[in-house]
Amino acid sequence: MNLRNPKSKLLLGPGPSNADPRVLRALSEPTIGHLDPDFVKIMDETTDLLRYVFQTANQLTIPISGTGSAGMETAIVNSIEPGDKAIICVAGVFGERMVDVAERSGAVVVRVDGPWGSIVDPEDVRKAIKENPDAKIIGIVHAETSTGVLQPLEDIASMAHENGMRIVVDAVTSLGGVKVPVDELELDFVYSGTQKCLSCPPGLAPVTVGPRALDFIKNRETKCQSWYLDLAMISRYWGSERFYHHTAPVNMIYALNEALRIIKEEGLESRWARHQLNQQALMTGLEAMGMKLVVEPDYRLPSLTTVYLPDDADDALVRSRLLKEYDIEIGAALGEFKGRVWRIGLMGTNSTKGNVVTFLAALEDVLTSVGAKINPGVGLQAASAVYR
Amino acid sequence: MNLRNPKSKLLLGPGPSNADPRVLRALSEPTIGHLDPDFVKIMDETTDLLRYVFQTANQLTIPISGTGSAGMETAIVNSIEPGDKAIICVAGVFGERMVDVAERSGAVVVRVDGPWGSIVDPEDVRKAIKENPDAKIIGIVHAETSTGVLQPLEDIASMAHENGMRIVVDAVTSLGGVKVPVDELELDFVYSGTQKCLSCPPGLAPVTVGPRALDFIKNRETKCQSWYLDLAMISRYWGSERFYHHTAPVNMIYALNEALRIIKEEGLESRWARHQLNQQALMTGLEAMGMKLVVEPDYRLPSLTTVYLPDDADDALVRSRLLKEYDIEIGAALGEFKGRVWRIGLMGTNSTKGNVVTFLAALEDVLTSVGAKINPGVGLQAASAVYR
Repeated sequence: MNLRNPKSKLLLGPGPSNADPRVLRALSEPTIGHLDPDFVKIMDETTDLLRYVFQTANQLTIPISGTGSAGMETAIVNSIEPGDKAIICVAGVFGERMVDVAERSGAVVVRVDGPWGSIVDPEDVRKAIKENPDAKIIGIVHAETSTGVLQPLEDIASMAHENGMRIVVDAVTSLGGVKVPVDELELDFVYSGTQKCLSCPPGLAPVTVGPRALDFIKNRETKCQSWYLDLAMISRYWGSERFYHHTAPVNMIYALNEALRIIKEEGLESRWARHQLNQQALMTGLEAMGMKLVVEPDYRLPSLTTVYLPDDADDALVRSRLLKEYDIEIGAALGEFKGRVWRIGLMGTNSTKGNVVTFLAALEDVLTSVGAKINPGVGLQAASAVYR
Repeated sequence: MNLRNPKSKLLLGPGPSNADPRVLRALSEPTIGHLDPDFVKIMDETTDLLRYVFQTANQLTIPISGTGSAGMETAIVNSIEPGDKAIICVAGVFGERMVDVAERSGAVVVRVDGPWGSIVDPEDVRKAIKENPDAKIIGIVHAETSTGVLQPLEDIASMAHENGMRIVVDAVTSLGGVKVPVDELELDFVYSGTQKCLSCPPGLAPVTVGPRALDFIKNRETKCQSWYLDLAMISRYWGSERFYHHTAPVNMIYALNEALRIIKEEGLESRWARHQLNQQALMTGLEAMGMKLVVEPDYRLPSLTTVYLPDDADDALVRSRLLKEYDIEIGAALGEFKGRVWRIGLMGTNSTKGNVVTFLAALEDVLTSVGAKINPGVGLQAASAVYR
């Protein structure tokens, strides 16, 4: 019966990443009531810290009681009424997921597709807007976890607003590791997850709601189709009224609170620079070993690197040996990239020089021993040089 | 900045209840990947243990990644298609909530109302079935947390099945403290929450799906309106396929796993008997003090006792003094009972003789000092006698 004794592993996949030890300790603090005055103070501090991490003054900035995908569903069901038209940008699994969620929510979806491993072209979005001036929202993934692409948002946000549309942004794999310019670009609805660059276990979905999106929520004609994710009700619990909606996941909120404190202590800009530097070292090492990166330099997501498998490397075998021999997890690819690409995350706490070096050493050992075609003995040197 | 330092409090409200210390320790075990072979073993053990606690052989018995209310929404959106008729029994806040959830899911709702503080009369349900033979489901709350009523399910389950309807049961405040006869009555869809009688922090919603409900899920004509709660997809992750749906809340599942182990160690029948005995002592003490219970003897919910305030007791003042002076939380009432009734939970780990005696002593002190009309000096004696 003693199955549950998880070893500490190094989680370098697409998430979850390792939680900071301080965050794990916070998780196990004693549960108190979801309406206890002491808990209310923690809620208030947590929303303040979330506003810092989202770089926003949006009052409605809270964690939703579900994982990142619940954040996506919250964003969609609180942004459209049945029959509303939604332009959704798709260049990977999470764009596809947004289409599915929007269709289930009664949206008329107009897709704008981009190639896997690259961005959605803003010119294609412009065309879709022109052809669908009645669309209410534009949905887009900022950090596409299935491809390792960071989608620029400036042009698309401007176009949305110039045409009276709201922009809904998936920042699950960017928030806390990469700049998410919520107020700067007036992003209307942004959601994330705790288990990526925030270095907190999975279970909560931070969201922030801008003035246009809040206005929609307050004035919609039909009820939100989800009771559990209805922000018109949830906001009354997180606001000064403290009106009971559902029992908040108290201990997960302790953990998020601690994770956000750690981010504030480091400072967002240092954190972003750290993610960039360590990814640079990782990429340099992989390329020196002869491996090819998937994404072109302008659109690389600092928190998640995608790389093609070298010749003669078996996907599942290499990942399983990394896990068994080194306790290191990296991610398989999904969809079009399945079996051909690995996803290597350096997220939050995990984005360190030590982890880059450890990983490159372990990967070289495993690849060599399975007979894959790489340049031996040069990856570590190349990566280390990035830090000098 | 040091707001988050929650004292250990005795949570004797309607939930959350205190988590067992073993459960809190499990929460802080290192996060591992949601597809890691070691995590898959924990998932399998957890579903086995959930089947034990639900007393069912239902294969699809899993924790949903949200709180108890997400369990309710999961049950509804996976039990109806838009336009389906649903008979919903209402005798408190959670019956009302089920109506709201069902309407948002496109159901045509037929209400069967019962008085607050009592059950829904099976004869009224019989009448509703006769008048609505085309209804697809009957929704009912087994343990109504707003009133402290335990609703008998035998007759209503039989009627549902005789008329080709499925029964959806809310067992949020009964599972793990009171018998929930899933297979015995062939209950089709039952959901619960972790933060009541399972003595685990809030954040997961265990559900079990019987053969009729599973058949509906597999053969429905429209997609489930919720992507996040779509059991057709989620079941592929929890089944042998391990198909990625969303990132499981790994640490919360450790906690649930430990909470369920503790229940199995004690044994369900001992646990139910313990809940009954301690409630008996609590009620005896309250009545000896001169207070009046809300629910008639046949329908009292062992895990949650409702009692009218004594004369000259101010609701908020008494609860706040219990919290400040004794670190004891009890629950305010909702809806029709607001300001007139307290809700006292003895759930899971918290259902002990020590807590009954501690609480009665604290209550007597606070009530006496605010000048409420009670019989002094007799409550503890009366309660203690129950154990002899």
